[in-house]
Amino acid sequence: MQETKKNKIINDPIYGFITLERGIVFDLIEHPFFQRLRRITQLGLSYLVYPGAYHTRFHHALGCMFLMEKAILQIRNKEHEISSEEEEALKIAILLHDIGHGPFSHALENSIANNISHEDLSKLFMAKLNKEFDGKLSLAIQIFNNKHSKKFLHQLVSSQLDMDRLDYLKRDSFFTGVTEGNIGTERIINMLNVVNDQLVIEEKGIYSIEKFLIARRLMYWQVYLHKTVVSAENTLIKILKRAKQLIQNGTDIFSSSALKMFLKNNYTADNFIKNDDILEIFSKLDDHDIYSCLKEWANHDDFILSSLSIRILNRKPLKIKTQNEKFLEKEINKLKQKVSEKYNISIDDTNYLVFTGKVSNNAYQYHKTHINILMKNGEIKDITDASDQFNIDALSKTVNKYFLCYPKM
Amino acid sequence: MQETKKNKIINDPIYGFITLERGIVFDLIEHPFFQRLRRITQLGLSYLVYPGAYHTRFHHALGCMFLMEKAILQIRNKEHEISSEEEEALKIAILLHDIGHGPFSHALENSIANNISHEDLSKLFMAKLNKEFDGKLSLAIQIFNNKHSKKFLHQLVSSQLDMDRLDYLKRDSFFTGVTEGNIGTERIINMLNVVNDQLVIEEKGIYSIEKFLIARRLMYWQVYLHKTVVSAENTLIKILKRAKQLIQNGTDIFSSSALKMFLKNNYTADNFIKNDDILEIFSKLDDHDIYSCLKEWANHDDFILSSLSIRILNRKPLKIKTQNEKFLEKEINKLKQKVSEKYNISIDDTNYLVFTGKVSNNAYQYHKTHINILMKNGEIKDITDASDQFNIDALSKTVNKYFLCYPKM
Amino acid sequence: MQETKKNKIINDPIYGFITLERGIVFDLIEHPFFQRLRRITQLGLSYLVYPGAYHTRFHHALGCMFLMEKAILQIRNKEHEISSEEEEALKIAILLHDIGHGPFSHALENSIANNISHEDLSKLFMAKLNKEFDGKLSLAIQIFNNKHSKKFLHQLVSSQLDMDRLDYLKRDSFFTGVTEGNIGTERIINMLNVVNDQLVIEEKGIYSIEKFLIARRLMYWQVYLHKTVVSAENTLIKILKRAKQLIQNGTDIFSSSALKMFLKNNYTADNFIKNDDILEIFSKLDDHDIYSCLKEWANHDDFILSSLSIRILNRKPLKIKTQNEKFLEKEINKLKQKVSEKYNISIDDTNYLVFTGKVSNNAYQYHKTHINILMKNGEIKDITDASDQFNIDALSKTVNKYFLCYPKM
Amino acid sequence: MQETKKNKIINDPIYGFITLERGIVFDLIEHPFFQRLRRITQLGLSYLVYPGAYHTRFHHALGCMFLMEKAILQIRNKEHEISSEEEEALKIAILLHDIGHGPFSHALENSIANNISHEDLSKLFMAKLNKEFDGKLSLAIQIFNNKHSKKFLHQLVSSQLDMDRLDYLKRDSFFTGVTEGNIGTERIINMLNVVNDQLVIEEKGIYSIEKFLIARRLMYWQVYLHKTVVSAENTLIKILKRAKQLIQNGTDIFSSSALKMFLKNNYTADNFIKNDDILEIFSKLDDHDIYSCLKEWANHDDFILSSLSIRILNRKPLKIKTQNEKFLEKEINKLKQKVSEKYNISIDDTNYLVFTGKVSNNAYQYHKTHINILMKNGEIKDITDASDQFNIDALSKTVNKYFLCYPKM
Repeated sequence: MQETKKNKIINDPIYGFITLERGIVFDLIEHPFFQRLRRITQLGLSYLVYPGAYHTRFHHALGCMFLMEKAILQIRNKEHEISSEEEEALKIAILLHDIGHGPFSHALENSIANNISHEDLSKLFMAKLNKEFDGKLSLAIQIFNNKHSKKFLHQLVSSQLDMDRLDYLKRDSFFTGVTEGNIGTERIINMLNVVNDQLVIEEKGIYSIEKFLIARRLMYWQVYLHKTVVSAENTLIKILKRAKQLIQNGTDIFSSSALKMFLKNNYTADNFIKNDDILEIFSKLDDHDIYSCLKEWANHDDFILSSLSIRILNRKPLKIKTQNEKFLEKEINKLKQKVSEKYNISIDDTNYLVFTGKVSNNAYQYHKTHINILMKNGEIKDITDASDQFNIDALSKTVNKYFLCYPKM
Repeated sequence: MQETKKNKIINDPIYGFITLERGIVFDLIEHPFFQRLRRITQLGLSYLVYPGAYHTRFHHALGCMFLMEKAILQIRNKEHEISSEEEEALKIAILLHDIGHGPFSHALENSIANNISHEDLSKLFMAKLNKEFDGKLSLAIQIFNNKHSKKFLHQLVSSQLDMDRLDYLKRDSFFTGVTEGNIGTERIINMLNVVNDQLVIEEKGIYSIEKFLIARRLMYWQVYLHKTVVSAENTLIKILKRAKQLIQNGTDIFSSSALKMFLKNNYTADNFIKNDDILEIFSKLDDHDIYSCLKEWANHDDFILSSLSIRILNRKPLKIKTQNEKFLEKEINKLKQKVSEKYNISIDDTNYLVFTGKVSNNAYQYHKTHINILMKNGEIKDITDASDQFNIDALSKTVNKYFLCYPKM
Repeated sequence: MQETKKNKIINDPIYGFITLERGIVFDLIEHPFFQRLRRITQLGLSYLVYPGAYHTRFHHALGCMFLMEKAILQIRNKEHEISSEEEEALKIAILLHDIGHGPFSHALENSIANNISHEDLSKLFMAKLNKEFDGKLSLAIQIFNNKHSKKFLHQLVSSQLDMDRLDYLKRDSFFTGVTEGNIGTERIINMLNVVNDQLVIEEKGIYSIEKFLIARRLMYWQVYLHKTVVSAENTLIKILKRAKQLIQNGTDIFSSSALKMFLKNNYTADNFIKNDDILEIFSKLDDHDIYSCLKEWANHDDFILSSLSIRILNRKPLKIKTQNEKFLEKEINKLKQKVSEKYNISIDDTNYLVFTGKVSNNAYQYHKTHINILMKNGEIKDITDASDQFNIDALSKTVNKYFLCYPKM
Repeated sequence: MQETKKNKIINDPIYGFITLERGIVFDLIEHPFFQRLRRITQLGLSYLVYPGAYHTRFHHALGCMFLMEKAILQIRNKEHEISSEEEEALKIAILLHDIGHGPFSHALENSIANNISHEDLSKLFMAKLNKEFDGKLSLAIQIFNNKHSKKFLHQLVSSQLDMDRLDYLKRDSFFTGVTEGNIGTERIINMLNVVNDQLVIEEKGIYSIEKFLIARRLMYWQVYLHKTVVSAENTLIKILKRAKQLIQNGTDIFSSSALKMFLKNNYTADNFIKNDDILEIFSKLDDHDIYSCLKEWANHDDFILSSLSIRILNRKPLKIKTQNEKFLEKEINKLKQKVSEKYNISIDDTNYLVFTGKVSNNAYQYHKTHINILMKNGEIKDITDASDQFNIDALSKTVNKYFLCYPKM
């Protein structure tokens, strides 16, 4: 059919139809680096708690791009210029903002490679693609890195109200079925404006912003930091660590060839920069590498590797306790002692089965960037000042919770 | 069909199907007092701003009853007894909790009759129905009036988390299209429990409660107290007042016969109690009485009556300004002076066209009743203490806004 | 706020936000003729069965206009020209296509005035508005009347796949809660194209069209022609007829002044054309005129007028039987005899309480206009040929059902 | 919290909350055989077209069980007895009805093992679980195998209106975003009844059934048999076949240990029955086995294995043509000749790149079992007779389409 030569329509259960026009954006989506995101779940192991939450980074990136188009339309309607080159660059930047994610997204962010964030990896991927596409991503990269003179363009890609957050809260709420996390994406975008090169929200949108911040907080505690998810994901980290230990000590373990490279070597940011091949190998990784290993490792002789793998596969997470203060060494050591005896493993090895950590949540990161409200009288206020009640102020405090994981005994 | 003898299914765009079993609840729904609620909109004149918001008190009452059934089920599952008599009484009580509403619900609450709230009228209606139904509503009335020894039964009907609020927030959000007001009704009901004869929410439901309070606040400012709605509803009050003034001064004005009784006489609670007929006449009133008058009054000789009526009919509301402090007499008087000159009316009559008022909103009425959270350790805490951030505390403060209405000049 | 000078945003629970730009379309919406549609329900008395179905002609007209904008965008994307004048005209034409509806829409279409359809009245209103707006509606009227050389423009306004149908099926399904009537509006619009100046659907959209036709049929039987609705609406027609009979015979009955004119006079199309005032008076009518009369008539001495009015008010519809063949005179007469005796009324008057009629439904009106499918090979086929199964053919047959209404005895 | 000892609540974006009570049903869900369904997508490779469609067999099975509870409630309300043992058995039977599915569900049904359907495998799994659970599944198995004297129990598990179909149409529609496939699950269940030990639908539900059948057909063509999906899934079958050929000819290829067993051996139903271990190994398989292999095979020396694997990974499906008649040998051979030359492979090997097949769809399988309608007069009619138009008759015909896949050249 004639029109399929010009564009492609993708069904999104959330927004309806997403239309992709032929061109560089289309070609980037077709690229193996991007197609790979189809195999990386957005929410790591959250589907162990929310069985609908299998949506992928691929889907999220398309959703962000869709919202970016809406935002551009609104801002232009309010008579701020965005050139067609800038439009394309914005779409590329948001499309690729998460391309550096590896298996299980955030869950394994520092377990596969060391000291390199997914943002850094996104930048490396963009640079590589920019070469491949003859420099056509340069403007997008400039915006992504906040080097463009129009600051508000970067804010559309990365800020407290960027298209990333607007999409992921809505999408995660939808697929988990936690309807309370749903936000007024459309209304927020309608309220976007630009003043002094800063993205602002018009006063009429205050309640939508309050709602957005509350929903974000709710999603953190109810989904992203759900106790069972925290336990499962930290267990997965331990599994990777054990696998590295074993393989680096010469024990043979099953692995895909790409993952094996990362298990054998403790690659850091430096390695990625010096050796281009490492990014290429990283680009082969996705959730399947991990899962296929877990399934083989479940039968491995090493008790720690196998027992933890089985916990993920059969959904038998370690028990988890949370509290507002750090756990006492004494309590932890007592548990380790017990575990050492019960499973007949060294105290050192109990670190794989008994461990603590901290999760934090602040819905509004006041000290990083602001959400600015354009009052009817033309003034600009931070949302915490603009809100007629100071409850938002409380929201901007970081809440820490400490957790302790251990086998049921 | 056989089963239609036993029950009736009603489509609700929100909950799907609502099943009504034959019996007293069914008969009450069929009663003219209740059928009349089909002609009383839930949100007064809000449809001037939200064109989908034509839903009625009838629909809301059915929705409440549906939620009551769910709540009873949950509470019984948690091994608290609710007898089948109590179940029926709870359903009757919630079904009739708003039966005392007159035309345009809250908007005209003190304009048709004086000093008698819709709750008082609901009680009068219930008493009348109780006679008609041979005392079968006695238990429901006892619960409604909080005279039953099981206090939590009353809390299901009237408290900060009663079925009324759970339904109206959800319903008003649905029909206005203000999706951000949507609340997790199902989850909140699942988290209901009873401790020491008090309704409580289990700790896991904290975020849903936070969300509920924020949604409630958002709905207040965005819908219930929307400036255009406030202007229109206060104008309607002025119209009724003017009509009473005219008719009581001997000017003939069009009116339905039921409404005429209320325009001619300033009935108070006392009159209702002494003279049974007044309630009967009140029961004939609904939105149509008001609207049919507005349409005739639009052509009346009296400038104030006609011009205000036209404002409602053709959606030309008075301008409205809001601020956090009272408006200064000086400012108001200046406006009145201008209006007096422009329209050639007495300063006294400008009170119909220039007026001020106050709207208030506190999402959480801490000083009335509490929302109690049942912590995992068995402790009971108020939501403002249980929440890990004290933002809810701010929510519980009353926010007042003052408004000033006047014709555009 | 700045942007409010340029446009206005309206919440629609179905489409989200509908943006209205300032200009003639905006001014038409503000006009009393159009504002009046806020007081005319889309589905007549269907809310007696579906308590959510209070949505109005006003809301429907806005929805149609919203879809028209989407359709224009699609068609332009497929490189068919629609000028900005034509765009405005299309929006006006669809906005006003139903402006001729009177109280309760179709239900009373031939009861208030005689032999004049709502389309004819729409044309009269458009002509009147065209004068008021200095000829700015001429192009819209030309398209509405199918006098424009580009035939596909008219088809967007009126055909088997016009924006009217796409909106009303979706909207009626939404507000009744009959979710099965929901249709793939967005997909159908995406599949629109133009070939040889005819609106066509691209082959990929075949299943959506099948679905649309099935949904339309389902909505007919389940909502529009629901037995209780048919009974209630035909009763309403009888009430109007009785009121006319009484008033024309000199009996005094309550009525709004506008409705009184139509009760006293049997206005026909001719009268409207000759006397401009009649349209003006018609423009004052809405659902409230009828309802306020019903409430007074419920107390009238005339048994027929009062008893039928009470039936509507208290939702006690006449019983209704349906069958595929006409009812036998014998059966009808026997019923009338009984009714005459029971209620002590003349046989003549039993015609108000015992009556028959026919309802028809054909989901696809093959003999009027076609739904054309653009096959991948470029061929154009009627949907009944394009569908791989001939079931659509059956759909295009008219189904008649006969009904008989009578009081329960 | 107290109640978590009694039951568990699972979020379902479709139905809201699904409550699981402790007991055998709960224990079955916890079993590794069932947990494994979390790793098997419901719709095979459909997510290559519908990026939201990652939902799993696990989620579907829970949904079916939820609907089963609703259906049992309805049928009991209509005074047909279902004992609590039968209730539990019905829930077990529907929960496990798909437990025999392997990787990618239907897509690889005959590629992993030979001549053994997923139903047969489900029966084997049930038998094994029955042993493990001391015979507690016996009644469920009896119902599943239609050996129970109450025939309607089996029909709830497997018939044209079983809970399986009611859930999967709704669920697949939801996650793909093909909203037109949505069906009136709740209404259909409300209309369920039992006459002469047969499941029937009450007459009022006719339109819902028509809608259900149309939606089913639409989903077939638009989702299940979408051309790109057909191409991708048949390619996957070819990949498995090639892998078997290579490994059985002694070429070493990467594989998980469980999959390797199935690649090396052409297991049939017989083997499963004779050797209990094979089912155990089969129970280790899921989508990850296949995907992790594809990723390694993409680098294999064998051109066919690697090039086809890359096609799936990077979403470069073979081109596909469909028509109503078989493709001519001549046309196919010409293509094979070209492919042989272009890729320098033997004509024999072109069978992996150029192949034909047939897809069929009949929405209503008249010749298998009937959908019976209970007319108001007590008569039972097949839906094709009960429908007032014979379009359903057409629906019951099988539609065949032939496809031809080949590399773009």
